[in-house]
Amino acid sequence: MTIPTVFWLVPIASVTSLCMAWYFFRQMMKEEEGNERMIEIASHVRKGAMAYLKQQYKVVGAVFVVLAVLFAFMAYYLKIQNPWVPVAFLTGGFFSALAGFFGMKTATYASARTANAARKGLDKGLKVAFRSGAVMGLVVVGLGLLDIALWFFILNAVYADSPLALVTITTTMLTFGMGASTQALFARVGGGIYTKAADVGADLVGKVEADIPEDDPRNPATIADNVGDNVGDVAGMGADLYESYCGSILSTAALGATAFALSPDLQLRAVIAPMLIAAVGIFLSLIGIFLVRTKEGASMKDLLRALGMGTNVSAALIAVASFAILYLLGMSNWLGLAFSVLTGLVAGVIIGQATEYYTSQSYRPTQRIAEASQTGAATVLIKGLGTGMISTCIPVLVIAIAIMLSYLFANGFNLDMRADAIATGLYGIGIAAVGMLSTLGITLATDAYGPIADNAGGNAEMSGLGEEVRHRTDALDALGNTTAATGKGFAIGSAALTALALLASYIEEIKMAMVRAMEKGQTFIDMAGQAFDPHTATMPDFMAYFQVNLMNPRVLIGVFIGAMAAFLFCGLTMGAVARAAQAMVEEVRRQFNEIKGILSHEAEPDYGRCVEISTRSAQAEMIVPGLLAIAIPIVVGMLLGVAGILGLLAGSLATGFTLAVFMANAGGAWDNAKKMVEEGHFGGKGSPCHKATVVGDTVGDPFKDTSGPSLNILIKLMSMVSIVMAGLTIAFL
Amino acid sequence: MTIPTVFWLVPIASVTSLCMAWYFFRQMMKEEEGNERMIEIASHVRKGAMAYLKQQYKVVGAVFVVLAVLFAFMAYYLKIQNPWVPVAFLTGGFFSALAGFFGMKTATYASARTANAARKGLDKGLKVAFRSGAVMGLVVVGLGLLDIALWFFILNAVYADSPLALVTITTTMLTFGMGASTQALFARVGGGIYTKAADVGADLVGKVEADIPEDDPRNPATIADNVGDNVGDVAGMGADLYESYCGSILSTAALGATAFALSPDLQLRAVIAPMLIAAVGIFLSLIGIFLVRTKEGASMKDLLRALGMGTNVSAALIAVASFAILYLLGMSNWLGLAFSVLTGLVAGVIIGQATEYYTSQSYRPTQRIAEASQTGAATVLIKGLGTGMISTCIPVLVIAIAIMLSYLFANGFNLDMRADAIATGLYGIGIAAVGMLSTLGITLATDAYGPIADNAGGNAEMSGLGEEVRHRTDALDALGNTTAATGKGFAIGSAALTALALLASYIEEIKMAMVRAMEKGQTFIDMAGQAFDPHTATMPDFMAYFQVNLMNPRVLIGVFIGAMAAFLFCGLTMGAVARAAQAMVEEVRRQFNEIKGILSHEAEPDYGRCVEISTRSAQAEMIVPGLLAIAIPIVVGMLLGVAGILGLLAGSLATGFTLAVFMANAGGAWDNAKKMVEEGHFGGKGSPCHKATVVGDTVGDPFKDTSGPSLNILIKLMSMVSIVMAGLTIAFL
Repeated sequence: MTIPTVFWLVPIASVTSLCMAWYFFRQMMKEEEGNERMIEIASHVRKGAMAYLKQQYKVVGAVFVVLAVLFAFMAYYLKIQNPWVPVAFLTGGFFSALAGFFGMKTATYASARTANAARKGLDKGLKVAFRSGAVMGLVVVGLGLLDIALWFFILNAVYADSPLALVTITTTMLTFGMGASTQALFARVGGGIYTKAADVGADLVGKVEADIPEDDPRNPATIADNVGDNVGDVAGMGADLYESYCGSILSTAALGATAFALSPDLQLRAVIAPMLIAAVGIFLSLIGIFLVRTKEGASMKDLLRALGMGTNVSAALIAVASFAILYLLGMSNWLGLAFSVLTGLVAGVIIGQATEYYTSQSYRPTQRIAEASQTGAATVLIKGLGTGMISTCIPVLVIAIAIMLSYLFANGFNLDMRADAIATGLYGIGIAAVGMLSTLGITLATDAYGPIADNAGGNAEMSGLGEEVRHRTDALDALGNTTAATGKGFAIGSAALTALALLASYIEEIKMAMVRAMEKGQTFIDMAGQAFDPHTATMPDFMAYFQVNLMNPRVLIGVFIGAMAAFLFCGLTMGAVARAAQAMVEEVRRQFNEIKGILSHEAEPDYGRCVEISTRSAQAEMIVPGLLAIAIPIVVGMLLGVAGILGLLAGSLATGFTLAVFMANAGGAWDNAKKMVEEGHFGGKGSPCHKATVVGDTVGDPFKDTSGPSLNILIKLMSMVSIVMAGLTIAFL
Repeated sequence: MTIPTVFWLVPIASVTSLCMAWYFFRQMMKEEEGNERMIEIASHVRKGAMAYLKQQYKVVGAVFVVLAVLFAFMAYYLKIQNPWVPVAFLTGGFFSALAGFFGMKTATYASARTANAARKGLDKGLKVAFRSGAVMGLVVVGLGLLDIALWFFILNAVYADSPLALVTITTTMLTFGMGASTQALFARVGGGIYTKAADVGADLVGKVEADIPEDDPRNPATIADNVGDNVGDVAGMGADLYESYCGSILSTAALGATAFALSPDLQLRAVIAPMLIAAVGIFLSLIGIFLVRTKEGASMKDLLRALGMGTNVSAALIAVASFAILYLLGMSNWLGLAFSVLTGLVAGVIIGQATEYYTSQSYRPTQRIAEASQTGAATVLIKGLGTGMISTCIPVLVIAIAIMLSYLFANGFNLDMRADAIATGLYGIGIAAVGMLSTLGITLATDAYGPIADNAGGNAEMSGLGEEVRHRTDALDALGNTTAATGKGFAIGSAALTALALLASYIEEIKMAMVRAMEKGQTFIDMAGQAFDPHTATMPDFMAYFQVNLMNPRVLIGVFIGAMAAFLFCGLTMGAVARAAQAMVEEVRRQFNEIKGILSHEAEPDYGRCVEISTRSAQAEMIVPGLLAIAIPIVVGMLLGVAGILGLLAGSLATGFTLAVFMANAGGAWDNAKKMVEEGHFGGKGSPCHKATVVGDTVGDPFKDTSGPSLNILIKLMSMVSIVMAGLTIAFL
């Protein structure tokens, strides 16, 4: 099939993105890093982060080798697997790891430079930090589209003339998401455990026992804490969204190949539409990035407006552009699909704002948590847990409405479950996810900005810069906390829509697995005793054949196990943080006892030991939850078949999403309730109320930075594993 | 249709049960209540509890009147509702309230008598407390079966000769569960808020600020705390299990009427089988109750063995008896069904034991939480939350396996989704729930025993009885904590199976609603344009007609909203406890400040004010979550139809069950971790470790006694509302 010229926009956007990332990186490197002490501290953090990443990639590499061998065995020996999977799996993982590596390298070079720029002015600091964050954003979308474009060219050359060409190509490409997912899982879980072990450990001994401030150089765990911001919040977040980005584009392409199968011309357009929207999104993100600038001496409000300006303009432009793209592509239902894109964009914005409402100290929920500190830590906890649970309402309703609207817009408001209406509707859900993620270049830049500003603050504190500089880095950091909260809402929302698109495209993968199985001689007989032909079967046919209704005990059991999997996964990661933090606490206590003179600034603590403990704990603790996430869908698929898998995915998606919102918002609200007290309410720093809110904040740390965000990956990875293992599930029928 | 003679066993068992309850009540009343101070305190608690119940019944009565009028309007004016619903709804609520009233009356009379009996010996105390608990157990099962038997006689007389007689009768009877559900909701939520507002409030000021022990008469909230044990743990738990008991029997009867519709003879037997198993269960529970006795000077281990003896013998006997009952009834698949009953019984036991493992200080999980207190309250919280989440694994897997096994045993290991195989399989799931609940007479006795012993301890403390007596009541109380934990596991497990049976019987109710709608002239056309006839349609036909598969966005949205509803409901009840506890804290502080001499025993605190605050808070706070639980399924039914409802029920069931187990176990583990420290580990009472575990325990209070148990009702009530509103859902098609 001839690839239309317009498709070249995709590789061009990808290369532009990477070039601009390189440009921003060079620009940042030209900035001065500051005085000797600042350089020294930054180099400690950089070394720690790189050492961690190296160790992490070793472990993940081993997992990848084992899985690739397994896939190769299934593909080439058992022949129940798409033959491209082993290779696609490896490239997906490789590109994801590369994006994490570049993003984190930039971040670790940027922190001291941001602190140094802040010495000259607030706006200078903002620019360095934000442009460095943009490197991460642009590398993620650039590498994502590069991988997609490359594979599309290759597979198109191979399968051009085969029947079901586009279905085969898109379902094959979908499997490279498995590599990205697996990499992302370990990056999120490992990074999350690392950062919170260091943070919680540092706080428990430093703030509570030794009564020294955050980021104090006397605290042996402080370097590890700063390293953690980079490996957890930069590399982990990047890998998470890389996966959502690729997953949403690829699953939408697969859904498009099926929805428009009857018209080869429309089919090709439907497949490249999500890629084009993403490509145009890159250019529009770049415009947004250049719009982020403030005047000399800007206030906090100005800063917030500056960032908001960038993301909002990008989002508004892509909304307009998607109407044009879909119209020019000549999609038959272009108007409806454009409204689906718009639905995704709007849903992302509302979820972000709801997150802000529930976690910002400007609103009642967080203020009430701070108030509760007057009756002690227990009421802070009860109130925070309650608020987090209530805060799930709006995001779930928004996602529910977005699902329904994007489905109905795409298929012309048809709720009849006819084959064509379902297929087009599901394509609409996919394209809504693409819409939400289309401006990832700039939204991820604002996310990655946060930990860079945080680290800059740490650097300024540790190198004893003047109070004025510290004030500026505090302002930059506070801005980062706001963007982090909305960024988390966005990451969860997009993960939910992506997982839903993956769930829908699972049946496409089952179809191809059945086609391959038939070629090997397997036959399929339906309940009426008739032969079942996957080539011509529609979505309702598959639903009927596999009995995917809610009275099938396999579906119900799947839903139960899916709900439980989300809780179990969180329980394991919470436990991991508790254990790792305890090890850190013991080490910090040991150093305070054994290395005389730390607290009087006469001796330097052994930062390296703490970095090592965090690294070791994170590596050891990420294995069990990681393997569990991969094993559960495989086992459920073998025991309960397609019906069980769909139940499992629906259950884990609904529960995992709700649980993730709960944990992220409770954690964010506790964090800001503590900040509110620190700003002088209810007795201020050092008061009993402050101690009560510190307990809340500490409990919230693994909530919002380890377990909650890891659920984003869990819900996507379980779908991905099911997709890649479709052949095995069919072989077990 | 002639009701077979054997059915008379049901009313006979019911009356026997009530007579024995009366006998145990009289026996308890004959015991002496102790000295003047003991009588006075008991009368304070009794008055508070009765005042609360009166107030509660007023509010609930108002809700009932509104709902009954609504149902009457729907039934007699719109004619979209079963005409019996308004009456059945009221009797269900009335009997449930009556059971709560009797149970609580007994409990409040028993506490001082238990304390007094404990002065004579441990075994004396156990007997009084346990036999008083048995009153609650026997009243619940007696009234439950009485209501069922009465309705069966009445409806059989009315519908004897109509077509679909038994289906009509059983689906009508099922709706009386709605009354029990609604009553239970307010009892659980209101009671849960009451008890924890008082408990948390009393602890926060008393233990933490004023440093006086638990149940100290100087604490103004101490009477409210003791009242709370009665209204929350006795009346709330009783209403919860009354609902599960009736719900499981009635939904199984409805499933039986459909599963065996082709053979009128078998059909009748299938309908009465669950009632007969429950009736025989009453006699076997009585045997168990009489077996609970210990010798003079029994040790703690002996006590535990005494209780275990009673419940285990009853369970073993009903296991054997169910084989006999089903065989003698002449059920065609009697052997398989008996194994389904056995599955339910075994599942209940395993869930109870898993609960004990995760919450008892004899095992590692709770010990590790206590250990974590060495690094402060935050790690106690993180560890406890993590443990609670991990503890969901076994109960969910047990329920999943129980669903599958009871389904397969009943239909002869048939996983094909043919109409007859599904219907028989679902009947098997229902009868497993009946099996789990068949010995409720004695299991509920052990549950109700706990708060009676707890109150006896409070009475002994407040009236200043000697240390030896206090030791004995402490031992009785400790025993109650163990039975409370396993009892909670049992309540959750049985709620899950009951909700599942209700979910399955929902389609029966939809069938009858469609039949009524057709009589009014509504027609139903399927996707192929053919007329759809609910009279002859089978389960797979309904699934296909309503498109209840997982690619239907209505189903997916339903699952999302169901998952969210569980979290929202918990968030609201957690928030309610936080607000109510804060009000209590302020009142207690006020009394300590304003009433001079409280702490030096010179003045008596104003207990009444605290009782009033708890009562008022509980009444005000239970309304919103209560109405929400009723409103959500109505709105979802109108907007998303049958497909949306089934998604909603599956989502809320899976998430609600998992969340309930998490909250109950985390709460139980924190409670026992605190007890462990109090017993002298990690510094003992008053140490920093103790303070850290007290925070955990306080957070755990609403977890395990308000939000967690209320979820049991939520998952059943949402099914019940859907069932009763089936007519409305069909009218909106």
